[in-house]
Amino acid sequence: MNYKDASMAEIDSAVAAAKAAFPIYRRISDVDRAAFLVAISREILAIGDKLIQSACTESNLPEARITGERGRTTGQIQAFADFISNPTWKKEIHDPAQPDRAPLPKPDLFQTQIPLGPVAVFGASNFPLAFSVAGGDTISALAAGCPVVFKAHPAHPKTGELVGSAISKAVASCGLPAGVFALIHGSSNEVGSYLVQHPDIQAVGFTGSYRGGKALYDLAVRRPHPIPVYAEMGSVNPVILLSNKIAENPAALAAGLAGSVCLGVGQFCTNPGLLILQKKDATFLDLLAAELDKLPLGTFLTPGIASAYASGVANLSNHAKKLTSRDLPSPALFVADAASANHQILEEVFGPCTVAILVDDEAEMLTFIESMDGQLTGTIHGTKNEISDELIDTLLQKVGRLLFNGFPTGVEVSGAMVHGGPFPATTDSRSTSVGTQAIYRFTRMVCLQNRL
Amino acid sequence: MNYKDASMAEIDSAVAAAKAAFPIYRRISDVDRAAFLVAISREILAIGDKLIQSACTESNLPEARITGERGRTTGQIQAFADFISNPTWKKEIHDPAQPDRAPLPKPDLFQTQIPLGPVAVFGASNFPLAFSVAGGDTISALAAGCPVVFKAHPAHPKTGELVGSAISKAVASCGLPAGVFALIHGSSNEVGSYLVQHPDIQAVGFTGSYRGGKALYDLAVRRPHPIPVYAEMGSVNPVILLSNKIAENPAALAAGLAGSVCLGVGQFCTNPGLLILQKKDATFLDLLAAELDKLPLGTFLTPGIASAYASGVANLSNHAKKLTSRDLPSPALFVADAASANHQILEEVFGPCTVAILVDDEAEMLTFIESMDGQLTGTIHGTKNEISDELIDTLLQKVGRLLFNGFPTGVEVSGAMVHGGPFPATTDSRSTSVGTQAIYRFTRMVCLQNRL
Repeated sequence: MNYKDASMAEIDSAVAAAKAAFPIYRRISDVDRAAFLVAISREILAIGDKLIQSACTESNLPEARITGERGRTTGQIQAFADFISNPTWKKEIHDPAQPDRAPLPKPDLFQTQIPLGPVAVFGASNFPLAFSVAGGDTISALAAGCPVVFKAHPAHPKTGELVGSAISKAVASCGLPAGVFALIHGSSNEVGSYLVQHPDIQAVGFTGSYRGGKALYDLAVRRPHPIPVYAEMGSVNPVILLSNKIAENPAALAAGLAGSVCLGVGQFCTNPGLLILQKKDATFLDLLAAELDKLPLGTFLTPGIASAYASGVANLSNHAKKLTSRDLPSPALFVADAASANHQILEEVFGPCTVAILVDDEAEMLTFIESMDGQLTGTIHGTKNEISDELIDTLLQKVGRLLFNGFPTGVEVSGAMVHGGPFPATTDSRSTSVGTQAIYRFTRMVCLQNRL
Repeated sequence: MNYKDASMAEIDSAVAAAKAAFPIYRRISDVDRAAFLVAISREILAIGDKLIQSACTESNLPEARITGERGRTTGQIQAFADFISNPTWKKEIHDPAQPDRAPLPKPDLFQTQIPLGPVAVFGASNFPLAFSVAGGDTISALAAGCPVVFKAHPAHPKTGELVGSAISKAVASCGLPAGVFALIHGSSNEVGSYLVQHPDIQAVGFTGSYRGGKALYDLAVRRPHPIPVYAEMGSVNPVILLSNKIAENPAALAAGLAGSVCLGVGQFCTNPGLLILQKKDATFLDLLAAELDKLPLGTFLTPGIASAYASGVANLSNHAKKLTSRDLPSPALFVADAASANHQILEEVFGPCTVAILVDDEAEMLTFIESMDGQLTGTIHGTKNEISDELIDTLLQKVGRLLFNGFPTGVEVSGAMVHGGPFPATTDSRSTSVGTQAIYRFTRMVCLQNRL
């Protein structure tokens, strides 16, 4: 089947339907909106095996992973349904009137949240279900009361269609206007550009590359009426390895790290692409290289990602020393001194590859961390005694999530999760794209004064 | 005394000091930060009459107003000190670990807020104290843990210096690094442009004109690392006048409205510059015109604002019918039909002037509201029975604050206040610049996973 790029007229019509649906959709109760979300989940499960097969075929990901991802997707939908079923989600504040206050009476003030309007969402290549058509961006926007126009990822258009149809079935079965959700296709940049610049689109959610996310951001902020863009653009996710922790059980640490680097062919935004450790601990890297040499490369999501990985690691070998022994492309470990590390070493290579930066001492470690760009995650492997408050504080400035003695891959869907971080990890450091707090990307606070 | 524009080297040095102060300042406790805010308030009061005289002289505002504004300023500082003294302000979320969860254990997740970094703040001309050097933007940034580089408004540089010195005294008396606060002068655009583009500035607060705020926004989003800009740029603040409410007591309504239009020579961002009513109620406008004709024009803050008002009302009289009888410039009421209202009529004229738009019926009223730009406030004068849910819902889409049977001037400093609204009222509709929620413009959420 052929998935044609949406024409301008088709995009106009999808956005017009979303705009028309908005007043109706925003006025339904939270309870009805929660029931709609649950209906989406039900319709996704009703597709059955066809969905699993389609996603496996289009993504090269194994069935167990896709089945797990479907569970994550429906679990996420349920989490948002539960979240908006509790009225506290609107963070209402009531300051009662003080009619007798001098010199002026105080009015009654009531603050609540309202949805922003139609949202454009762009899905990721690496999660054909959980960060795609019915993924966190779409569901948090729908939970907030915003209609969604979704641009399917060209890497898995059929899976996108299947899930899009499930959402549209839920829209119909809940008696909502069809414009609450639309799916459009677009393999060219023109479709996304036109969508983001449409005057009736009020916000954008995106998960993908820096190039893609930044291009949409640039368009959105140059509109006559600028709109917020929540682009999650990945990062290298530094992992700090401290001496005592390495010494405790180097073999287990190396195996755990290698597993995280190679998980899902390294195609995660939270893949640990940067290690920072002291020169005196450098022999640990031989262990890690040996672990990586044991692991298969695997099949990439798309031929494009495979060739980008091949050229990314080839480029890295011009700037850093390769410690893994197999020919490239393969899971790879590189090493460079902090003093000689240039910017090219620190750019994300999407895939199972990581670069170790060697520092002289803790002072150079802190200086290096301070020089880093914004990151989705930062990780410290250390014993309680060797982790200084300064290290925590310094790394925290650069990340959305700080992990202790863990691995950054595997992002929990939970109220406290932050999947975000300073630019260039995202275009809005004050938000998260995973977990229930993601809903506030698509709402704004309003105050009602002396409401009758 | 001459207040020279800051040179690039002076700006660099102020920002470098702010950057150096940030790690120290962000690590002090909330209690210590609250004590610092209270010390600022004390130092402002210690300036005594000199401050009142300086602000009166520089702004042409009467002493009672400036004294009141000083009270508003210190009250606001106390409100932020109280707010951060309660640990709940960090909106912490703790999701405990579930080590036995299958198939994967759930980690311990803890979400909290951290400050963004050095903030550039631009004060307003119309509030030499409450929206200036120690105004809501500065104090909310300091409360959040961000150092501030403040660009004084050229309309009141001496007042700015006095308050800036008070803050610096509080910095010193609390043993904080001097870089926590700096005041710079700049009557040219270059100073502000350079400051906002400085790579170590992490956010911007601004209150003023659309032209000024939008220019800063455009610079900030084009930086290599874009930063958030919270520019409050004013609006025309539509007031909907419904038939039964007008009929109840037209004289009182006309007197109240005229007072709000002329308050502070109309120099408020929330000045009611647009009235919307049905043609059948148009005779009410004669009453309002008569009330406005009784009120003095007053002295504007600056000669620049006076001449902008004169040309603004002259321009309006080319597009709408003047109902007030005095020669312009004077407090003025214009009227036009909704069908013939062009964009020029709807642009803010800063000063005691308002434009009435006549609609045929409620349907045309709703259509007109839907066509409006974003506003700080919207007001409905109506009886409970005649205010439809649709009117409330439609107007709420356009505003940050919706008032019932009141006047938009006079913005309460309170937890539930929203002084914000959709573009072009502000550059970030999800924020407020008045009230304690303003602090979250300068923080971002982070997640600590399995913290030791």
